[in-house]
Amino acid sequence: MSVELALEELLDSRVADVFTKDELREKLARSERERRPLRVKLGVDPTAPDIHLGHAVVLRKMRAFQDLGHTGVLIIGDYTAMVGDPSGKNKTRPQLSYDEIEQNAATYKEQVFKILDPERTEIVLNGEWFRKLAFADVLRLASRFTVARLLERDDFEKRLAKQQPISLHEVMYPVMQAYDSVMVRADVELGATEQTFNILMGRQLQEQMGQERQIGLLVPILTGICGTVRMSKSIGNYIGIAESPQEMFGKTMSIPDRLLAEYLRLATDYRPDEVERLERALADGSANPRDVKFQMAKRIVAMYHGEESSELAASDFERVFKRKEAPREMPVIGLSSKDLKEGKIWIAKLLRLANAASSNSNALGLVRQGAVSIDGAPVDAGRPDVAVKSGMTLKVGKRRFFRIEITNDTSD
Amino acid sequence: MSVELALEELLDSRVADVFTKDELREKLARSERERRPLRVKLGVDPTAPDIHLGHAVVLRKMRAFQDLGHTGVLIIGDYTAMVGDPSGKNKTRPQLSYDEIEQNAATYKEQVFKILDPERTEIVLNGEWFRKLAFADVLRLASRFTVARLLERDDFEKRLAKQQPISLHEVMYPVMQAYDSVMVRADVELGATEQTFNILMGRQLQEQMGQERQIGLLVPILTGICGTVRMSKSIGNYIGIAESPQEMFGKTMSIPDRLLAEYLRLATDYRPDEVERLERALADGSANPRDVKFQMAKRIVAMYHGEESSELAASDFERVFKRKEAPREMPVIGLSSKDLKEGKIWIAKLLRLANAASSNSNALGLVRQGAVSIDGAPVDAGRPDVAVKSGMTLKVGKRRFFRIEITNDTSD
Repeated sequence: MSVELALEELLDSRVADVFTKDELREKLARSERERRPLRVKLGVDPTAPDIHLGHAVVLRKMRAFQDLGHTGVLIIGDYTAMVGDPSGKNKTRPQLSYDEIEQNAATYKEQVFKILDPERTEIVLNGEWFRKLAFADVLRLASRFTVARLLERDDFEKRLAKQQPISLHEVMYPVMQAYDSVMVRADVELGATEQTFNILMGRQLQEQMGQERQIGLLVPILTGICGTVRMSKSIGNYIGIAESPQEMFGKTMSIPDRLLAEYLRLATDYRPDEVERLERALADGSANPRDVKFQMAKRIVAMYHGEESSELAASDFERVFKRKEAPREMPVIGLSSKDLKEGKIWIAKLLRLANAASSNSNALGLVRQGAVSIDGAPVDAGRPDVAVKSGMTLKVGKRRFFRIEITNDTSD
Repeated sequence: MSVELALEELLDSRVADVFTKDELREKLARSERERRPLRVKLGVDPTAPDIHLGHAVVLRKMRAFQDLGHTGVLIIGDYTAMVGDPSGKNKTRPQLSYDEIEQNAATYKEQVFKILDPERTEIVLNGEWFRKLAFADVLRLASRFTVARLLERDDFEKRLAKQQPISLHEVMYPVMQAYDSVMVRADVELGATEQTFNILMGRQLQEQMGQERQIGLLVPILTGICGTVRMSKSIGNYIGIAESPQEMFGKTMSIPDRLLAEYLRLATDYRPDEVERLERALADGSANPRDVKFQMAKRIVAMYHGEESSELAASDFERVFKRKEAPREMPVIGLSSKDLKEGKIWIAKLLRLANAASSNSNALGLVRQGAVSIDGAPVDAGRPDVAVKSGMTLKVGKRRFFRIEITNDTSD
């Protein structure tokens, strides 16, 4: 592919900013000339291993580089996660144990290859280099940055202006991220727009340490399904790429219509002209938002689960929401006769066996809200012991269905 | 000694500030009760091992604690010296090799026991603890300080105001000094007034880490013999405690009269009432400044070299300056007949053999200034080869005298 075509492919409408396009053109040309793939860096945080469509925007950009023959370098910030936020003020940076980090990293890897090309991906842990630094090395590294420059970062500037404290270790984090770029010799660093400052620090440090500076390529931040703030696991307004086809489909259908254009652009793999065509059709009224959303939901599910699962999820959605029926396929709650007392079971126990409630009190809360029904009849909070038989359908909330199966346990 | 008497002894007119007197009283009382000596910390920098009267102010305060039974803890900042100023901007913080540090530390120890009581002194190198810190430990330590607080330090504030850069590693230095206090469990930290901020940081960190906070005890900064700026080795306006009695005496006599009161108070071991008496006598004209200075010079020399050397230095000074004679004892320049050509020697060679010039051009410069004479006759720069005989006196500058001795070399 010519350099100009590659540039067009990479710098599509899913990119918010690039610094600089000329440098990227040059690197692409040299890469082709020397047959040396570019090293495209993305730093990830092992504190939140569930990948959602917000993360997918940047991961799909990495995949675009891979499809052009370049190497994706995923840096898992295990060292930073192990330190956490020692001041305890930043709740999004909890301190994780070694085991938790290992486990999160494993979950992360499993999910990330739904998007990335494993053949063209390097995964590295930044503890590899940070564990080896002595205090003296840290001081030498820190000497390359001025305090004034570090405090120019948006969130630091805001906090300074509001006289909110900034701990000294916090200003070290951009330094660490910059050092990551040096250690992996990144040609490009990807990130959401909020990463602009950190990526610029990486450029600066690479130059100071005798490397060519990396390109910064920034993608927009995806709004969550709530329609108000960014998609985030901790807020719960997300669509996870490892969620079931039904769940993904339903959540996509639940977004406000005004997010349609944003999701068409950022969350699907439609070609830019297709996105434009759909946007135009929405604008001139020739397409119904619900139909476009339905088509988009099918596309998103197909991206992560394949066409067949997507078709099934779409028809299930129609059954449940249009015809108020249960889907054809449901997870099964397997009960043993020993779980029952005179044919009855405590509804809280049933919900917990189904993994539909996180605790007994959570379960009873759902019952009180009228969100739980068996074979179409809402469960009465005053009568929490319910009679169950094989084949009955338990429904929790709007979209979750379970089939009950009872086996006669004769052991012991 | 009662606590109140000890307090009076320690908080004399050689103290600029203490935080706080009440806390010090409490610590002294408990120390007496529990028969546990206080740990009195002083951090020293191995980049400038020559101790001068400016350093002596604080060291003599440490000695005062020792005379009351407490322990002096000298922390040699070897780790910091090894790192130096990686940005290279701070010339007073050169990067030293391990050997240089060792050598400087040895020189320092040798000199410091002219003032301190070796039986009650611990000497530690801070590399002992800093070498063991991992990056994660540094981050945890840094998390205990806010950037805003660290930037309140006087010199940082001034540089910020002037938009001069402050490197990130520089704000780590007060953190390191504070950590030193924790590691040696300091009860008191001594320093010149410029150390106020750093010592306060130590108090704060000790409290945060579960220790009782140290007392800060600050001494004034001694003006150099030039009479304008602080005494400093790099400026050359100092009196070193390892200098010869003659040199010390002469330099003391050279200070401007207006420094007399300051030197009486800070540079001598006169009791406060004696200082006051002399100050009064100077003020009401009943004493002549030159006589007071002469007496003070004798006292200062006696403090570091003993009474006898002091008397000798005083009478030498009188001979040289009052009667323009050479002193009775002079260093000898030993020449062999092979050094001479027809009884003559190049004046530059002679000055270099005497260690009175650092180079030939330096030597010839002195000659051109008329600063060099032999047996009272100035050497003519146009006739640099001078005739010399055993017993002749070489004079360089105002105060340096050498006796020439020639031996007939018959070897080879």
